[in-house]
Amino acid sequence: MRKLAVSAPFLKKEHCTQITQTAQRCGFTPDFYIETPLSPAQAADYEVIYAEPSRELIRAATSLRWFCSCFAGVEAITDESLFHNADVLLTNSAGAYGLTIAEHITMVTLMLLRQMPTCMEDMRQRRWNKIPSMRSIYGSSITVLGTGDIGTQFARRAKALGAASICGVRRSQKPCDSAFDRVYTNDQLDEVLPQTEILVMALPSTAETTGILSRERIALLPKNAIVINVGRGTAIDQEALMEALNEERIAGAALDVMVPEPLPADHPLWNTKNLLLTPHVSGQNSLPETVARNVDMFCRDLENYASGKPLAHLVDRRRGY
Amino acid sequence: MRKLAVSAPFLKKEHCTQITQTAQRCGFTPDFYIETPLSPAQAADYEVIYAEPSRELIRAATSLRWFCSCFAGVEAITDESLFHNADVLLTNSAGAYGLTIAEHITMVTLMLLRQMPTCMEDMRQRRWNKIPSMRSIYGSSITVLGTGDIGTQFARRAKALGAASICGVRRSQKPCDSAFDRVYTNDQLDEVLPQTEILVMALPSTAETTGILSRERIALLPKNAIVINVGRGTAIDQEALMEALNEERIAGAALDVMVPEPLPADHPLWNTKNLLLTPHVSGQNSLPETVARNVDMFCRDLENYASGKPLAHLVDRRRGY
Repeated sequence: MRKLAVSAPFLKKEHCTQITQTAQRCGFTPDFYIETPLSPAQAADYEVIYAEPSRELIRAATSLRWFCSCFAGVEAITDESLFHNADVLLTNSAGAYGLTIAEHITMVTLMLLRQMPTCMEDMRQRRWNKIPSMRSIYGSSITVLGTGDIGTQFARRAKALGAASICGVRRSQKPCDSAFDRVYTNDQLDEVLPQTEILVMALPSTAETTGILSRERIALLPKNAIVINVGRGTAIDQEALMEALNEERIAGAALDVMVPEPLPADHPLWNTKNLLLTPHVSGQNSLPETVARNVDMFCRDLENYASGKPLAHLVDRRRGY
Repeated sequence: MRKLAVSAPFLKKEHCTQITQTAQRCGFTPDFYIETPLSPAQAADYEVIYAEPSRELIRAATSLRWFCSCFAGVEAITDESLFHNADVLLTNSAGAYGLTIAEHITMVTLMLLRQMPTCMEDMRQRRWNKIPSMRSIYGSSITVLGTGDIGTQFARRAKALGAASICGVRRSQKPCDSAFDRVYTNDQLDEVLPQTEILVMALPSTAETTGILSRERIALLPKNAIVINVGRGTAIDQEALMEALNEERIAGAALDVMVPEPLPADHPLWNTKNLLLTPHVSGQNSLPETVARNVDMFCRDLENYASGKPLAHLVDRRRGY
């Protein structure tokens, strides 16, 4: 029997059963590392590893032929030199997180537009104040930077909530989900930003996306714009964003990702005006549906792998996602 | 020219222009009371008053033939003895608030399911904790008590967000929006509650709705249920709700309405577990779209009134809404 290691703390008994049944059909014996993660010392035996991204694991996995990351972001493990040979396949779990992250984006967007952080602080202090100015997703102009699963799932929800216009902005011109009214490429971003009221950033971390929301681009946003980032903190010039927020040149932001994580207690982001911070939880694996999708995706690709078919969630290591 | 008083603090210049133009076409001269509200002493002259509900105004308005409440809830002014004669028409602005309140319900539902109150308290204290268990609107079982504009607008959004089942519960069996998978009458509520994960209450205050979510009915809800009330605080046995929350017999609640309002600083609601309070802001008139709809509805009914047609938003004072 061929060897498969499954190392993901969020898996429940039913997921392990599902993986065991699939693995056995495919000629694999799965070893589960749920309470204690797979260590590099144990990694050398495995042909297939389904785990959180880890440079150490991959470096130690000298029999590895396929590493499936149970996270979507794999920027930490695209370095070719980590892999014992260039033919080792790398897949990610992009596609499992669209639902939960789209619900997060919907929530924080409404919270910013309806001034919930102020309202909750009033409530904490038992002050009964009205909210001076509320806004709506209905009728708003939204730009979604990154039109993958997360961006698309959010775009569909925003459409259903009555957004007036939803622009997708992506790396290359390709057909997108019909929830996007228009699709632009990254080099057209400067034309889109001045008309953007709600900017949603759902990008992988690559050379091309690092710093994509630069100081100059933040300056192109209108005064009523809000910025939501659920991709990677590196996509934003964080210093410039803090300045724009503190000087009220934009209306608000919600960051689930930032640099660094966890955020040190003395970091100026904590004191930035109109900023809603969450500790990188938008895509966490406590949502049962997210875990179910993650496991389904792995199992389908395990069937593909065993029968010599192309893997559905293959990462291009040079491109970075 | 016939006399019309317009007394609503949230009206902007463009709304006054729109009302003036409509009024003139209809043979009315409008007087605007924006900064300072219309006083009872001034009310006697007016045939039509468009204002916030006020018992004193109506009692003093001895020439009144139509009172249009710019709020949806009119329980304070349905008492027949307030009106100088039984033919005085009363309308409300139900229909203007569905959009903003549906966005509020969507927001607080996601906040409860995703444990945002805990997360925000962590962030306030600069603690970087994960969220132990998150849930989703996707796949959930929702019951909407009250299938008017607010309930319907929310049901449509919940459907678009992927709720597995949406039950409407209403006073009488009537056709409802297709967003409702099933519609029950109030007397069937006990059958629906045990299967309800998200209970949304969007009811007017009437004899029939007072205390409708009784202690016995709260006990029928499953342990993972959350309760959202945007109608009137009187609809819930508040003592029983606090107990159920504190004893974790239900998972959470979000109250935008409560008894009394404003909530005194020493009220036990402030300390109730898993309770998200907002100070009756879900339908406030700071959202431009809400005001626009409110004014549109009044203007259309002013045209109806002037041409002797039935008013679209007539309140049945005996029924109470």
